[in-house]
Amino acid sequence: MKRIVILGSTGSIGRQTLDVVRSLPGKFKIVGLAAGSNWRLLAGQIKEFGPLAAAMSGEEELASLKTELAPGYIPDLYRGREGLETLATMPEADLVVVSVTGAAGIFPTIAAICAGKDIALANKETLVVAGHLVMDLSARYKTGILPVDSEHSAVWQCLHGLGSDQVEKIILTASGGPFHQLSLKELEGVTADMALRHPNWNMGNKVTIDSATLMNKGLEVIEAKWLFGVNYSKIEVVVHPQSIIHSAVEFLDGSVIAQMGLPDMRLPIQYALTYPDRLSGAVPRLKFTDLQGLTFEPPDLERFPSLSLAYEAGRAGGTMPAVLNAANEVAVASFLGGTISFKNIPYIVECVMEKHELLSNPGLEEIMAADYWARDLAKKQIEKSLI
Amino acid sequence: MKRIVILGSTGSIGRQTLDVVRSLPGKFKIVGLAAGSNWRLLAGQIKEFGPLAAAMSGEEELASLKTELAPGYIPDLYRGREGLETLATMPEADLVVVSVTGAAGIFPTIAAICAGKDIALANKETLVVAGHLVMDLSARYKTGILPVDSEHSAVWQCLHGLGSDQVEKIILTASGGPFHQLSLKELEGVTADMALRHPNWNMGNKVTIDSATLMNKGLEVIEAKWLFGVNYSKIEVVVHPQSIIHSAVEFLDGSVIAQMGLPDMRLPIQYALTYPDRLSGAVPRLKFTDLQGLTFEPPDLERFPSLSLAYEAGRAGGTMPAVLNAANEVAVASFLGGTISFKNIPYIVECVMEKHELLSNPGLEEIMAADYWARDLAKKQIEKSLI
Repeated sequence: MKRIVILGSTGSIGRQTLDVVRSLPGKFKIVGLAAGSNWRLLAGQIKEFGPLAAAMSGEEELASLKTELAPGYIPDLYRGREGLETLATMPEADLVVVSVTGAAGIFPTIAAICAGKDIALANKETLVVAGHLVMDLSARYKTGILPVDSEHSAVWQCLHGLGSDQVEKIILTASGGPFHQLSLKELEGVTADMALRHPNWNMGNKVTIDSATLMNKGLEVIEAKWLFGVNYSKIEVVVHPQSIIHSAVEFLDGSVIAQMGLPDMRLPIQYALTYPDRLSGAVPRLKFTDLQGLTFEPPDLERFPSLSLAYEAGRAGGTMPAVLNAANEVAVASFLGGTISFKNIPYIVECVMEKHELLSNPGLEEIMAADYWARDLAKKQIEKSLI
Repeated sequence: MKRIVILGSTGSIGRQTLDVVRSLPGKFKIVGLAAGSNWRLLAGQIKEFGPLAAAMSGEEELASLKTELAPGYIPDLYRGREGLETLATMPEADLVVVSVTGAAGIFPTIAAICAGKDIALANKETLVVAGHLVMDLSARYKTGILPVDSEHSAVWQCLHGLGSDQVEKIILTASGGPFHQLSLKELEGVTADMALRHPNWNMGNKVTIDSATLMNKGLEVIEAKWLFGVNYSKIEVVVHPQSIIHSAVEFLDGSVIAQMGLPDMRLPIQYALTYPDRLSGAVPRLKFTDLQGLTFEPPDLERFPSLSLAYEAGRAGGTMPAVLNAANEVAVASFLGGTISFKNIPYIVECVMEKHELLSNPGLEEIMAADYWARDLAKKQIEKSLI
């Protein structure tokens, strides 16, 4: 029985991870659950799975959680960043699912690696901002970084242990997002509500907006560079609106291996949980003859410049990906709040990147400093653009 | 340097195998070449590759070959079935490419296995008529049966060493052949010439007709059963007219791994030759964004009953697949010769299968006896249908 900690259990990936656990009875034991502020849902998860420990971000939420659970079973309770790290390093855990969103995911991930845990990584930012540190640590502590993201899980399954020396190209597919048919002019008028009706995947709001700008794919390009040890010139993005081919690898000889399935996050989550085994679970099956046809287009970098910005930041390296990511988080939050337009998201990111003085091979403190700097500047740029 | 014997070097697969050898200089040494009757082409191949030994079917062709080569280098020359077996067991060979067509492929394949050679198997009939014997021998002599056929190569690449216990389903794709759009009525009027204009793959005449009837796919289903050790209920055929997905495997968890590429036989041939390595060769590359869209349909068993007959023969087992194959060879030859209609091909096969008294777990002699019996009866049926 694999013993699992889920950091971010009330979010989209966390809830689907628990769905997978439910669908494979007897295979997993949930030993730790951490959530941000949704104490009501976390209380329900604790009642169902009885973890040894749980954590929430704030004192107030923790108090509400305790009240909700009493007089029943109450696990050991922890709070804040320390709480996440305590759960990430629990001696009772074999695998830590990191599905907290944002750059906050990096600390518990590093803590878990140093404690020798395998990581099922659903947090994009960890590898984007600190890929060089995380991959080094993972090699040093001999832990696995198992991708949960459908695209990276696809590449991982296609490679099946083959090294990057056999790879000609990694092909990351992108749904194109809800706006991939819109003209430059039409993109000016889109709202957060329009973006949140994303056709294929069941995702959180931040990721959905990133998917609409193609920044999501850009961040995945940077992640792929670290996960699979290939140069940016060997990572290609292809828009594939049906999201059936989840990504592919072209090998040296020209043979392409692709991973396919219905767009359902439970499939890559389950693979990360059961790896190296494959188990018959509850994930719906792909039926080729039901498919309406699979199509592919190159991404339009004029309409969706975020993807180019991500390649640029990745190639620049050092602190630049952290700056890209932080400025993007601020810009997306402003768009979700109705403060800036869709087209201003990449504009804000670009302005901040242009002003950044890059630091090569940064440590964690320097990455965090660049992150803070970029957030601060992005906010100022947004304020300025509103005057 | 891998030392290679090619049995059937002047046929479609043989010539493309030599293309692959040419495109990877320094990787292979051709030690033996065998052909049927095309002494002119074989002479050219001998001049280019300088094999230690060569073989042809008849005395007359051998004499012409000798005259053509003199006064230059003349390798050791052999003749007939013994000639094929001599080349198949050459101590100087590491890998034997079996690309002779028809049931004749089985003898040199068995000889090569017993001599401990790895087999790159392009001859369909070997596994169809004697899969149980060949797979047993291959296990006993610890030799590899490496599929050259694009579909089986695809499945082999998708499995990548995983056992059949992890497999939910093998999905063999079929182009559907030149007639897959025609109605039952229209199929009555088709000619051999129409069939030989096959859209996707560069193949021999017999295979092209089999591709038009879907018997080719049916034989591949039986081969897949033996190569990958799965039941017929786990092998599904899907018509995919673009021939870009060469086949796929659905694993227990619902994840589908597919192998893709341009329809070019040199890709699976090269993989069988270079396995377990992948080398950058001359095979043209797939570009996703050039694809016009990929479509999938179920095969129409009413219009193409040969596929059902193959499943039926495979499930019956014993001598039945040999009977299916032999009757089909005779019927296809009659169609190519203009004697019978397209629709009569499966009709003849079915008549012969119905009259066969099946023998379970047959030895090679019994398989050959069933083969002769079926050919004889098929010819009689054809004569009868012409009266």
